Amino acid sequence: MLIAQMEADEIQELESYFDTISQAVEGELNMLLPQAEDETDDSRLFEAMRYSIFAGGKRVRPVLVMATNELLKGKTPRALRVAAAMEALHTYSLIHDDLPCMDDDDLRRGKPTCHVQFDEATALLAGDALLTEAFSILGDRATHPDSTVRIDLVNLFSRSAGAAGMVGGQMIDIASEGKKIEDLDQGALARLQRKKTGALFSACCEAAMILNGASKEEHHRLTSYARNIGLAFQMVDDVLDVVGNEEEMGKRARSDADSGKATFATLLGVEGARMQANFLCDQAIQFVRPLGKGSRTLELLARFIVARGH
Amino acid sequence: MLIAQMEADEIQELESYFDTISQAVEGELNMLLPQAEDETDDSRLFEAMRYSIFAGGKRVRPVLVMATNELLKGKTPRALRVAAAMEALHTYSLIHDDLPCMDDDDLRRGKPTCHVQFDEATALLAGDALLTEAFSILGDRATHPDSTVRIDLVNLFSRSAGAAGMVGGQMIDIASEGKKIEDLDQGALARLQRKKTGALFSACCEAAMILNGASKEEHHRLTSYARNIGLAFQMVDDVLDVVGNEEEMGKRARSDADSGKATFATLLGVEGARMQANFLCDQAIQFVRPLGKGSRTLELLARFIVARGH
Repeated sequence: MLIAQMEADEIQELESYFDTISQAVEGELNMLLPQAEDETDDSRLFEAMRYSIFAGGKRVRPVLVMATNELLKGKTPRALRVAAAMEALHTYSLIHDDLPCMDDDDLRRGKPTCHVQFDEATALLAGDALLTEAFSILGDRATHPDSTVRIDLVNLFSRSAGAAGMVGGQMIDIASEGKKIEDLDQGALARLQRKKTGALFSACCEAAMILNGASKEEHHRLTSYARNIGLAFQMVDDVLDVVGNEEEMGKRARSDADSGKATFATLLGVEGARMQANFLCDQAIQFVRPLGKGSRTLELLARFIVARGH
Repeated sequence: MLIAQMEADEIQELESYFDTISQAVEGELNMLLPQAEDETDDSRLFEAMRYSIFAGGKRVRPVLVMATNELLKGKTPRALRVAAAMEALHTYSLIHDDLPCMDDDDLRRGKPTCHVQFDEATALLAGDALLTEAFSILGDRATHPDSTVRIDLVNLFSRSAGAAGMVGGQMIDIASEGKKIEDLDQGALARLQRKKTGALFSACCEAAMILNGASKEEHHRLTSYARNIGLAFQMVDDVLDVVGNEEEMGKRARSDADSGKATFATLLGVEGARMQANFLCDQAIQFVRPLGKGSRTLELLARFIVARGH
């Protein structure tokens, strides 16, 4: 293995960072999202938005925003708003992804998904509202006094989330479901991933750079870092899907491949995907280490992503 | 009747204006929306977005943007981009509204709705992408060189479309479906309408004012105009729903009320709703007439909205 296993104190350091950021970003979202005051007819919408936002989640994207912001010595309150907008955007994509016409998932992190807890129409609208809310948060003067910075953030978010980014990736994902594994090579799968999950990962680092400005070198290094850990994150997710399935349901890794859904795990095998993820995170660390001591959290994050797969 | 019937030449003048704006805004959208180059996996998404955008429609909102822009002597290319963004936003709301979990409509303007022509997942994503695309269009430098103007437009759109605006209105609409007419008075219905359809109508005039700046008086008069015709437009829609039903299916106006759905037509009766719409459009005209000759198209539009109900 290229990356050394994480020591207990390193894991604790990162977990404590995750806890701090999660609390801060949830506090921010609690302040920003509309709140049901009385029992009005739209209070159900606000409840659904908050239900999914506060349903837990690792908050990896906010951590990525905040750690990059710290590296660039940015102001915390501004970055927290951007992290909150990013989490609103991410949550919208999960709510719509879980709908019956998409992945049809009843549970997410052990809790009923939005459309199960409420109903399909409410979940659809809650997703729509959270996507719209992300732009509201970015557009507000509190995010940054310079309107050029704010409009750059709006453009980054719309580009990363739209037809050329995340939503385009979701479409490719659906279209590829029927395809045989032989027809999907690693390149095609990486292109799908780059849009579906990679675009938002990259946007997290990019957003912190827009907030604070970044030198050409910082931009190159942080962009490469984000691309690498985004891809590794997906590979590890695919591995955990298989390994989790094996443990929970006693079904073998191959059965996922038989179901016709190509993933990095079915394409490279569990060990192959793990090795690739290791390699990518090692590269990611090489990219940010020259940026100095401020890169420590980003390095830990890269190592943690790999550690999840073991 | 407060407003004189429209003369044939007035109708022709307005129709020709509608034709010009429709063509221009469709040309703009054709240029702005992603285009399927080859048969790639995301081309289906682009096709679905374009299918619904180019499925016809009155283009009332673009006309409202352009007519207000002309009154304020604004630059046409900038306003056309805003009108295109507004139509993308409006089309997203129609696609999601037509989904089985919402109104479950198979036809819109005589053509299969997006989820019937494609499938539910594609329609969901096409709506998501069009909403995101609206912000992309506004954020682009071509919309206005001043980033403050662009961010003001982003804020206007997100406020009008989000939980406090259109999506909130859709939620109230769903929640009120089960309610008996006795429980929904005209005030409650007007509040619903102000959010569900009124917010975007008002945003059309507001957007043109953001693009060009407006005096306090212009702002007051155009805002009042937009609020009035937005409400009148909904009343006439409700009337046409009943009258159309009567003609097509021989069902009486009361049957719509019996189905449990309160509308202005069921609440005020067909004639009552017509009279209210007349009154509102008359008021709207009084608001903009003092702004001079430039208000002619807006006046014709207000009269046309009423004329539709007869």
